Amino acid sequence: MSDTVAGLLAEIADVGRDPQRGGYSRLVHSSAEHELREWFVAHAERRGLEVEVDRNGAIWAWHAPGGSRDDAVVTGSHLDSVPGGGAYDGPLGVVAALVAVDLLRERGALGERPLAVTVFPEEEGSRFGVACLGSRLMTGAISPDRARALTDVDGRTFAEVVAAGGLDPERLGPDREALGRMAAFVEVHVEQGRGLVDLDRPIAVASSILGHGRWRVSITGEGNHAGTTLMADRRDPMVATGRLVAAIRDLARRHPGARATVGRLVPTPGGTNVIASRVDAWVDVRHPDDVVTNVVVEQIREAASLLAAEEGCAATMVEESFSPTVDFDAGLRDSLAATLGDAPVLGTGAGHDAGILKDHVPTAMLFVRNPTGVSHAPGEHVDDADAEEGAGALADALEHLLQLGADSRT
Amino acid sequence: MSDTVAGLLAEIADVGRDPQRGGYSRLVHSSAEHELREWFVAHAERRGLEVEVDRNGAIWAWHAPGGSRDDAVVTGSHLDSVPGGGAYDGPLGVVAALVAVDLLRERGALGERPLAVTVFPEEEGSRFGVACLGSRLMTGAISPDRARALTDVDGRTFAEVVAAGGLDPERLGPDREALGRMAAFVEVHVEQGRGLVDLDRPIAVASSILGHGRWRVSITGEGNHAGTTLMADRRDPMVATGRLVAAIRDLARRHPGARATVGRLVPTPGGTNVIASRVDAWVDVRHPDDVVTNVVVEQIREAASLLAAEEGCAATMVEESFSPTVDFDAGLRDSLAATLGDAPVLGTGAGHDAGILKDHVPTAMLFVRNPTGVSHAPGEHVDDADAEEGAGALADALEHLLQLGADSRT
Repeated sequence: MSDTVAGLLAEIADVGRDPQRGGYSRLVHSSAEHELREWFVAHAERRGLEVEVDRNGAIWAWHAPGGSRDDAVVTGSHLDSVPGGGAYDGPLGVVAALVAVDLLRERGALGERPLAVTVFPEEEGSRFGVACLGSRLMTGAISPDRARALTDVDGRTFAEVVAAGGLDPERLGPDREALGRMAAFVEVHVEQGRGLVDLDRPIAVASSILGHGRWRVSITGEGNHAGTTLMADRRDPMVATGRLVAAIRDLARRHPGARATVGRLVPTPGGTNVIASRVDAWVDVRHPDDVVTNVVVEQIREAASLLAAEEGCAATMVEESFSPTVDFDAGLRDSLAATLGDAPVLGTGAGHDAGILKDHVPTAMLFVRNPTGVSHAPGEHVDDADAEEGAGALADALEHLLQLGADSRT
Repeated sequence: MSDTVAGLLAEIADVGRDPQRGGYSRLVHSSAEHELREWFVAHAERRGLEVEVDRNGAIWAWHAPGGSRDDAVVTGSHLDSVPGGGAYDGPLGVVAALVAVDLLRERGALGERPLAVTVFPEEEGSRFGVACLGSRLMTGAISPDRARALTDVDGRTFAEVVAAGGLDPERLGPDREALGRMAAFVEVHVEQGRGLVDLDRPIAVASSILGHGRWRVSITGEGNHAGTTLMADRRDPMVATGRLVAAIRDLARRHPGARATVGRLVPTPGGTNVIASRVDAWVDVRHPDDVVTNVVVEQIREAASLLAAEEGCAATMVEESFSPTVDFDAGLRDSLAATLGDAPVLGTGAGHDAGILKDHVPTAMLFVRNPTGVSHAPGEHVDDADAEEGAGALADALEHLLQLGADSRT
């Protein structure tokens, strides 16, 4: 009997559970993420796929009967999660890809053309702060020097951590060979919203990804004793940051369609009886129009400076990553929507590796209905029947793409 | 040649340095704190003092020539620090005690009466959230059940951690024997303010400790994706908490003499691209009048409920510890001030084990000048000459107390 999406997800249901936050914490190069990667490799090998890890840490599982890996149709997603994330964001796309390979084989549709299932590392950016780090490295969207110097919460650099995981940090960076052999990329993903619920449909094709980025605001003041320092004598960066968090929300509300979020905030030193000397807050800003995103960011920068100054503190704001609004390949989008029985076309506010690859490879995404609409939290959900539907749609899409290629080559 | 305070502090200048925060992070039962405890025991034994660890983890180093430990004069402090703390808060009192023992021996003033140097654990409460945990356990100011259940940031209970450190968690709790043998307790401490700088004096005797406590405010909302959730659809506890931090400061300012601080704040799950589902913020509140402290706390509680409700969230506020304003023994205070050449008498906003012991034992504190006035931060400082002066003053005070006792017993 063949594997089902639900059955495969059940195999990893205990890996990386987070008892404190709920849900899953599967940070890149954690033991949980390593366990998931090994599990994926075992499943790929069981299917006769040839597994390689490229120099940026992405896994590729190949069906390449003639030995050639050129002009390949590629699908996949990621296995890392946000802290306390759901079970589907990432793994659904990887598992759907494995099941789609099974379906294509059953249909006799796995021909002579190469097909690969990929797993990209650090899609969420939850450990090193830059989302889609694997695909950014591969495409050159981040410099290897900057990537190597990124640090996690314990101060370990990305270079150290990948070296401990068996990669050569000196070989990180643009990989034209890996990129050049891709003829098309399709990623299946849980919908992060209720668009399909409202439409009463299980599967959509993606139109676009909202432009989005992350900025780190650091406000520095004067660390001191919480008991002995008079209120009037303080330069407390926590007060400035608290006011800023509220200001960011107010400001985002004034721009229709904008989203601005502070979900991560770290006071230093972080003691209960200590006035902080510094607070770092990460701001996630998104808007369909990149010009508006830029306006919102500049308004946040001004607010940070002003509020910091009012508290006798100083603020800096540094861009950690920015991805402009992405419109997926219109031809591919429309032909997939037609292939999938006139599937609806939906945009998303969430970033994905597909959004990074899109400038280099014809790229598409399929979304699977999420009854709660919640994502990046334990409430994220996909019904089993919809999950199988997602794998089936992916198989249809891949068959269509394999055929397209064959047509164009004739 | 005898040890100096500066020389002894230099021996531990590299233990527990915090490269990220600056200063020292010597949390209770960390490897750094264990190293300091071993270092203290070695110094005590070199002085011929008999070392014991009581069942709450306090170290006692005894000069007890007749074998009896009753009616003892006791001095000491702590070796744990806040995260990113200074070099003097705690260690100065321990090192001054060792040097004072040397001075008393040189003077021939170490007589037949027992004298002990103590090191109390978890004075800062930086790991388990309750300050003066060792002295609270010894005096019964916290129940052993509650102490055992306290957890650190990794979710480890105090019971687990002390067991790993070699203590029996079942034996934690009130220790009448340890308490009953103390005739007097004196603690030397770096001043946490600039009172002595303004007076141009090196040493003061303590009058009182401001009433103070810690409360944990937890605001829960709805975790979700930072990109896909519209601003209007959010129930974001970070926004409520940010507004609360500002409100707490405004509120404290309206009560002259009050201090209220949020120095520690933890969003869950804490991802950059995730709206938090919950934020915990710790509030430190202090005022000379415990009635006012209570008013401030109730106003913070109301503000938390109101602001949480305005953001579609819910708030709870739990007391983690409270210590009423402490006036030290007036007779002891005045006799020590006279003994120390009419030393100034100063209050403090900081809590200390001496403040917990004070209801059970005649207790005094000596403060040593701090030129920066900064404490709980790397800028905390004591000049070498003042540090030696502190040890000398402690020797004078102990000699006075040993003599007082001898007089009262004749």
